[in-house]
Amino acid sequence: MALLDTSKYAQGFGLGGVNPDLASERQTASFSVERLTTVLDGGAEHTRVRRAVVEAIERDPVFSRENQYFQTQNERYEAAVRKAVHLQKKMHEMGWREDGPEFIYIYRALAGDVAFLLHRVFMRSISVLGSDEQVAKWIPLATKHQLIGSYAQTELGHGTYLQGLETTAVFDTTTQEFILNTPKISAMKWWPGDMGRSATHTVVFAQLYVHGKCYGVHPFIVQMRSLRDHSLCPGITAGDIGPKMNFEHIDNGYLMLQNVRIPRENMLNKFCEVQPDGTYIRRGSQKINYFTMTTLRVSLLSDEVILPLMKACTIAIRYSAVRRQSKLNPGEEEAKILDYQTQQEKLLPQLAAAYAFHFINNYLHKLFDRGYKEIQERNFSSLPELHASSSGFKAMLSQYCTAGVEICLRACGGHGYSLLSGLPSLYTKILASCIYEGENTILLLQTARFLIKCFAAASAGQPVPQSVTYLAAVKPGKCPAKNKLDFLNPDIYVEAYQHIAIRLLSSTAAKLQDLIQSGVKKHEAWNQCTVQLVQAAKAHCHYITVKNFVETVEKLENKAGIQKIMKHLCDLYALHGIFSNAGLFLHDGYISGAQMDMITASYLDLLGVIRKDAVPLVDAFDFTDKSLNSALGSYDGNVYQRLYEWAQKSPTNQQISPAYEKYLRPLLHNKLSKL
Amino acid sequence: MALLDTSKYAQGFGLGGVNPDLASERQTASFSVERLTTVLDGGAEHTRVRRAVVEAIERDPVFSRENQYFQTQNERYEAAVRKAVHLQKKMHEMGWREDGPEFIYIYRALAGDVAFLLHRVFMRSISVLGSDEQVAKWIPLATKHQLIGSYAQTELGHGTYLQGLETTAVFDTTTQEFILNTPKISAMKWWPGDMGRSATHTVVFAQLYVHGKCYGVHPFIVQMRSLRDHSLCPGITAGDIGPKMNFEHIDNGYLMLQNVRIPRENMLNKFCEVQPDGTYIRRGSQKINYFTMTTLRVSLLSDEVILPLMKACTIAIRYSAVRRQSKLNPGEEEAKILDYQTQQEKLLPQLAAAYAFHFINNYLHKLFDRGYKEIQERNFSSLPELHASSSGFKAMLSQYCTAGVEICLRACGGHGYSLLSGLPSLYTKILASCIYEGENTILLLQTARFLIKCFAAASAGQPVPQSVTYLAAVKPGKCPAKNKLDFLNPDIYVEAYQHIAIRLLSSTAAKLQDLIQSGVKKHEAWNQCTVQLVQAAKAHCHYITVKNFVETVEKLENKAGIQKIMKHLCDLYALHGIFSNAGLFLHDGYISGAQMDMITASYLDLLGVIRKDAVPLVDAFDFTDKSLNSALGSYDGNVYQRLYEWAQKSPTNQQISPAYEKYLRPLLHNKLSKL
Repeated sequence: MALLDTSKYAQGFGLGGVNPDLASERQTASFSVERLTTVLDGGAEHTRVRRAVVEAIERDPVFSRENQYFQTQNERYEAAVRKAVHLQKKMHEMGWREDGPEFIYIYRALAGDVAFLLHRVFMRSISVLGSDEQVAKWIPLATKHQLIGSYAQTELGHGTYLQGLETTAVFDTTTQEFILNTPKISAMKWWPGDMGRSATHTVVFAQLYVHGKCYGVHPFIVQMRSLRDHSLCPGITAGDIGPKMNFEHIDNGYLMLQNVRIPRENMLNKFCEVQPDGTYIRRGSQKINYFTMTTLRVSLLSDEVILPLMKACTIAIRYSAVRRQSKLNPGEEEAKILDYQTQQEKLLPQLAAAYAFHFINNYLHKLFDRGYKEIQERNFSSLPELHASSSGFKAMLSQYCTAGVEICLRACGGHGYSLLSGLPSLYTKILASCIYEGENTILLLQTARFLIKCFAAASAGQPVPQSVTYLAAVKPGKCPAKNKLDFLNPDIYVEAYQHIAIRLLSSTAAKLQDLIQSGVKKHEAWNQCTVQLVQAAKAHCHYITVKNFVETVEKLENKAGIQKIMKHLCDLYALHGIFSNAGLFLHDGYISGAQMDMITASYLDLLGVIRKDAVPLVDAFDFTDKSLNSALGSYDGNVYQRLYEWAQKSPTNQQISPAYEKYLRPLLHNKLSKL
Repeated sequence: MALLDTSKYAQGFGLGGVNPDLASERQTASFSVERLTTVLDGGAEHTRVRRAVVEAIERDPVFSRENQYFQTQNERYEAAVRKAVHLQKKMHEMGWREDGPEFIYIYRALAGDVAFLLHRVFMRSISVLGSDEQVAKWIPLATKHQLIGSYAQTELGHGTYLQGLETTAVFDTTTQEFILNTPKISAMKWWPGDMGRSATHTVVFAQLYVHGKCYGVHPFIVQMRSLRDHSLCPGITAGDIGPKMNFEHIDNGYLMLQNVRIPRENMLNKFCEVQPDGTYIRRGSQKINYFTMTTLRVSLLSDEVILPLMKACTIAIRYSAVRRQSKLNPGEEEAKILDYQTQQEKLLPQLAAAYAFHFINNYLHKLFDRGYKEIQERNFSSLPELHASSSGFKAMLSQYCTAGVEICLRACGGHGYSLLSGLPSLYTKILASCIYEGENTILLLQTARFLIKCFAAASAGQPVPQSVTYLAAVKPGKCPAKNKLDFLNPDIYVEAYQHIAIRLLSSTAAKLQDLIQSGVKKHEAWNQCTVQLVQAAKAHCHYITVKNFVETVEKLENKAGIQKIMKHLCDLYALHGIFSNAGLFLHDGYISGAQMDMITASYLDLLGVIRKDAVPLVDAFDFTDKSLNSALGSYDGNVYQRLYEWAQKSPTNQQISPAYEKYLRPLLHNKLSKL
C-alpha cells in the first residue's frame, strides 16, 4: 500500500519503458515480427518505402492528429484543408510523385483526415469521360489547383439507382448552352464531398433533354463558386449537409441549380455528344465507365476497410494483455483479460479475419491487374467477373470489418467507449464503407445475379469464368472428417465451404425456377428470393477467401515459422466461419452434429494456441503510435497514464464551465449550509 | 419536368401535409393504433398521464433538443445542467412528485439529456447503506440540492471486479478520521457521472484498513468541491475524462485522493462500523446491496435499451415507406424500399423484437415486484433467480437492441449516417448499455452459473425456481411439425426453444464435468467452457422471451384485431430466431433440414404479412416528432424538406470558413486563371 509519488503526478507520470505485461508477450513470439511485416508489405523494399513515408508525414507538425478527438466539425474541416494544401508542398519537397512508389502510402499515413479527395474523382471522371480537348483544357487546371473539383452524382432522393436521377440539363440551341435545373427537392445534389464549402467546380450528373426528348443521365462540368472571392455563382445554392457520424473533416455538400447555363462544351463528350443543331450522337461503349467504379470499390478495401480492422485488433489485443480483471484461479493475482476464453473468442477471430482479408485483397488486385491488361487490349470478357467480385468482396469485407471493429471496441469495456481509445472513430468511419460506393445488400444481389447466370451456364456445360468453375462440381456427399484434428486439414474445410456455396446457390436457383414456373412474374420471383440470394453471394465470397488463405499459406513454404502461425490463423478463420454459421453446414447433413462438436473443439483449442502469439501478430501490422492515435493501443502499453494525460487536454478541462456561474452557484448558494 | 417553385425554396418548403406515401400506409391498418398504444402503456390512464408529461416537457423551451446535433461537448454539458436545474422548478410547478404516476415518464420525455442522474444514485446508496443518523443528515441536504452528489466506484484499472479496487481508507484512531488515498494511477476513480465538473460530494468505495488490517471495500462520503466557490478541496484532484461516443452531456470524471481526511461518521455504516478504538463491527447481511444493483439493471431496460430500438424502428420504417429506389417491376414507378424483401428482412424482425422486449420487460417487473415483497418480509430465497434474470436479460436485450439500432441505421443508407436522422445518436448511446451496469459477457456467465446449479438440482430431483423448472424436462425427441403452417403453432416453436436451451446447458454441464474428472482444475475447466456457457445463457433468455410473448398474446383474447397482429409479430420473432440460429436447432436433429426449409418459408411469408401493418405498428409506439428528433422519422414523412431545413442550421453554414482566407484563397489566387 505504498503511497503515490505525487511529484510523478505533476510530471504526468513520465511514460517511461514498456509495460512489463506487454513486454513479456513479445519475448515468446514463435516467429520473427519483422519478417512477417515484410511478407505483409510484399517485400523489404516496400517496407522501407512505407516507413519512410510514414516517418516524413508524422514528423511534420502540420499533419498532427493530436487534437483530433477534441475538435468541432468546423475545426476538423479547417485542419483537413490545411493538410491538403500542405500536402502539395510536401510532395514536391520530398520528391513524391503520383506515379511513384510512395504514393499509395501517403493517404494511409495521413489516416484519411485530409480534404480534396473528391478533386481526384473530379479529375478521374474528366480523364475517363472527357474528349481529348476537354482533358487538355481541364486536367492541367485541376493538377495545378487553379480550381477545386467535386463530383455531384447522388441526390437527396436518389442514390444507387442512377437512372432515377432527377436533375435536368436542357439544351438550348439558340444560345448553344445547357440549362441545368433542380426540378424538385429530392433532385438536390446531396452528400458529394468537398462540395459544401470548398469546390469551385463540379461534375454534375443530369438527365439530358434535347428538343423535349430525354437521352438519360450525362455528366456536365459546372462552376459553383467564383475563383476570385469564392461567392456562389448565379443560380447556385450550395452548402454543407451538417454533422455526420464521422467524416467531419469533409464538407459533404448540397447543391441546387436554378437555370444555370453552361456552354455546350461542358458536357463530357468522349462517348456521346450534342451537336450544335441538337443532334445527339453516341460513340463507342460505356462499359468501361463501370470499370472505373468497379476498381474504386477494390482500391478502397485496403485503407478504408481492412486497415481499420487491423488497427482495432492492435488496440484491443495490446490493451487486453495489459488490462487485468478478476481472477482465473483463486489465490493468484488478477488475470490478463486476454487469458479469458470469452475475450479470445471475441478478438482472435477478428485478427485471423484481418489476415484473411489482407490476402484476399492481394488476390483481388491481381485479378484486376490481369483484367485491366485485357481491357487495354480491347478484351472486355472479364468485366462481369470483375464487377461481381468487386461488389461481393466490398460488401462482405466492409460488413465483416465493421462488425469486427465494433467487437474490438466493446471488448475494451468502458475505456473502448472513450474517444481517446481511438476505437469509436475507427468504428464510425468504417461503418460508412457499408453504405458508400454501393449499398452492401444491393452489391451482394449483383454478385448473386452473376452467380445465378454462371450456375446455369456451368450446369449446361458451358464455359464460365475461372473463379466460378467450382459451380460445375455438384457432388452431394458428406464430410469425411473422423476427429477434431481432421478439421485442421485445409482440404476438409475448403471442401465444406465449397459444398455450402454450391448448395445455397443451387437451392435458390431451384426456388427461383419453381416460382417462375408457378406463374410468378420474373421480377417478383427475384424479389422473393433475395434474402437467400444474399446468403448465397456471401457464401461464395467466404469460400474464395478461405481457399485463397490456404493457397497463400502454401506459398510460404520457405518461411517455416511464419507459415506455421499463418496456418493456425487460416484454420481459425475457417473454423470460426463454420462455428458461426453452423446452420448452413448442418442443413443437408454435409456436416453432422458430432462433426460440429469436433469443429467446436478444434476451434476453441486454436484460440489458446494463437493467444500466445497474439501481441506479435498485431505488432507485425507495424502501426506507429501516431497512426493508431489511441491511449489504449500504444506500443508501450502504458494505457492508464496515457488516458489520464490525454483527458487533461480536453477542452472540458480548460476552463470553469459557464454552467457553474449560471446554474450551479445559484442552486447551491440559495440554500447554502455548513456541512 | 416542371420547374421548381423558387418561392417555396425561400420559404423553406413549408412542411405542409403528410407525405401521401406515408398517409396511404395508415389507411389500411388492420387494427386500431390508439388501442394498441393503450395496451403497450398498460391502460388508458397511463397513456393519458404519459402524454400530459411529454406535452408539458416538450412545450417548455428550456428542454428543447433542437440544436443537440450541432453542440460541442461543453455546450451539451451546459444544456444538461440547465435542464436539471430547471426540472426541479418544473416538477414543483406541475405538481409532479417522485412517487407520483408522472415520474417514470419525465426522463423518457427528456430523452436522457439531463445532468445529475448520479445525484440520485448518491442518494440511493446513502438510503440503503447509511445508518438512520446518516440518512437523517444527508438525505434532506441532497433532496434540497444543498449539495450535488456523485458515486465513485469504478477505477481506471478496475471495473466489474469490485474486490480489486485499490483506493485506500486508513483509519487514524488519534484523529478519529479516515485518510483516503489513490495509491497508484490505476486506482484513480474514472467514469463516475456528474463528477468531472458538477459534484460537490461523492460516495467513494475504498479498501478499509484499520490497524494495518484490510477489511475489504467500503463506502465513504467525501466532499470534493467547496460549496462556496466550487474549488477543489485539499488533496482532491478531479476533472472531466474527455470526449466519448455519446453522453457528452454528462461530465464523467476522474478523482484522485491524496491524504484526504474525513470524519469517522462519513463511512456509511448501516451494515458495518469502525468504532472509535478501531474495533470493526459487521452487522446483518449485505445481500440486499446486490438487490439494489440488480433492480437498477432491470429498471434501465425500458428507457435506455428498448425505447431506443422502438425509436430506431419508427424512423427506419417510416423512411422506408417514403424512400423510393429502383424498380421492382419494369415499367412501374420506383418502388418504396419497404417493398423489397431484403429491407423487410432487416427491419421487421427488429420491430417484432421491440414488441417482444416490451413484453419481457413487463414480465421482469412483475418478477421483481414479487421478489421485492418477499424481501421486505425477510425472505431472500428469490435473490439468486432475480440476480440471474436481471443479468441475463440486461445482457441479451442490450446486445440485441444495439445490433437492431445499427441495422436500422444502415438500412437508411447514407441519410441514416447523418446525425440529423437521429439514428447515430441512438446507436452511440445504446452501445454503452452493453458495457455499463455490468459488462454483458460477465453478466451472461453469472446467469450461466445459476443455470448450471439449477440444472444439477433439477437433475437430482431437487426443487428449483419457477423460471427454470423446465430444466427437469429432458426429453430428446424430434420436432413433430409436418409443414410450414405447423411452425405458426406456438406450441411447436416454444418447445423447440426449450429443447435447445436444455440441450446447450446439459451438453456444457457434461463438458465441464468431463474436464474436471480428467483432472483439470475447477476454475480452469470453467474458463474452457465459457464460450458455450454464454451460448446456453442466451438460449435460456431467448426461450423465456418467446414463451412470454406467446402468453402475452393469449391474454389479448378480448382484443381480436390486436391479438391477430401481435400473433404475427410473435411468430416472426420466434421464427427469425430459429432462422438466424439455425445451427443450434439442427445440431442434434431436433429440427431437420427439410423442417428448416419450412421455417424459412413461413418466416419469409410473415415478412410480407407484417409489412402491410409496419407503419401503424410503429405509430403505436406513440413517439412525438420532438422525442424522435429525426429528419427521417417524423410523422408526416416530409424527410427531404426536413433534411434540407435542418442542414441549413448547422454551424458549418453559419459563416465563411476561416479555411478560405487562410488556405483556399492563397491556393487559388496564386495561379488565378480565367476559365
